Amino acid sequence: MSFVRSVIPEFEAANAKYAASFDKGHLPLPPGRKVAVVACMDARLDPAKVLGLQEGDAHVIRNAGGRTIDALRSLVISQQLLGTREIVIVHHTDCGMLTFSDTELKSKVRSELKEDADHIAFLPFKDLRQSVIDDIAILKKSPLVLDVPITGYIYDVKTGKAEKVKE
Amino acid sequence: MSFVRSVIPEFEAANAKYAASFDKGHLPLPPGRKVAVVACMDARLDPAKVLGLQEGDAHVIRNAGGRTIDALRSLVISQQLLGTREIVIVHHTDCGMLTFSDTELKSKVRSELKEDADHIAFLPFKDLRQSVIDDIAILKKSPLVLDVPITGYIYDVKTGKAEKVKE
Repeated sequence: MSFVRSVIPEFEAANAKYAASFDKGHLPLPPGRKVAVVACMDARLDPAKVLGLQEGDAHVIRNAGGRTIDALRSLVISQQLLGTREIVIVHHTDCGMLTFSDTELKSKVRSELKEDADHIAFLPFKDLRQSVIDDIAILKKSPLVLDVPITGYIYDVKTGKAEKVKE
Repeated sequence: MSFVRSVIPEFEAANAKYAASFDKGHLPLPPGRKVAVVACMDARLDPAKVLGLQEGDAHVIRNAGGRTIDALRSLVISQQLLGTREIVIVHHTDCGMLTFSDTELKSKVRSELKEDADHIAFLPFKDLRQSVIDDIAILKKSPLVLDVPITGYIYDVKTGKAEKVKE
């Protein structure tokens, strides 16, 4: 049996510290820089630090792989209700999404959880650069997404650099 | 006609600065604190600052409202492939999701984009506290999610404080 220590006491202590010197209570709801960032959930990637975002600047949508098809609901809300007019996509090197296939994960879920995950597309990819190009194309083709500038980056977890993906 | 200045030059300048003093190139892929955070995409909420996360600590999944049903794909990947064993949910005051109904947004999309969004559930909510309770319940009931500690917070965008939601 393993004892895993909960993060909660540390999270609450960190929040008390943050709130004690908080001076951002005046910010409006719509993102000030009118941009929505779609990035991977990876622990090593902090989109605010990587792109220089301050509180109030940008919507930040994150999921496994930073896949845009999985961000569509949020992007429609971001554009239609909160006025963002630019999209930035951030995938990254050494991504977990490069390490498995949809079939493999479905088998693992069946074996570990005795459950069927056939209704979920896990959206892994084999080629990092292509994953960014594909995710830009999905948005450009979607009739639900406005025709706005879309820029894709590959963030290098070893160097901290975000490199623009040229199509 | 309005000219919107792209964020790209500023993002790239910020990234160059971040990379210049980057010292986190050694971090492993699995989150060090074995936690997945599900938070709203709101521009005013920076989960890393609010909860004291450093690069490498936690998966951060974000979408409109911080809805857990929309984070299921990412959570299964986080738990089954990358070993997270705790979930923290962060919704917040003054959330855009409190300001519209699913029907209203579908009408707006039809009117603005001449497109049908009937295949998307936009997942707005009318009661903030209840939205956190509902999102915890969705995960506890899902056979695809491990039986791990789940804690929900309401982040106050006016004070910077995250308040635990008691069920």
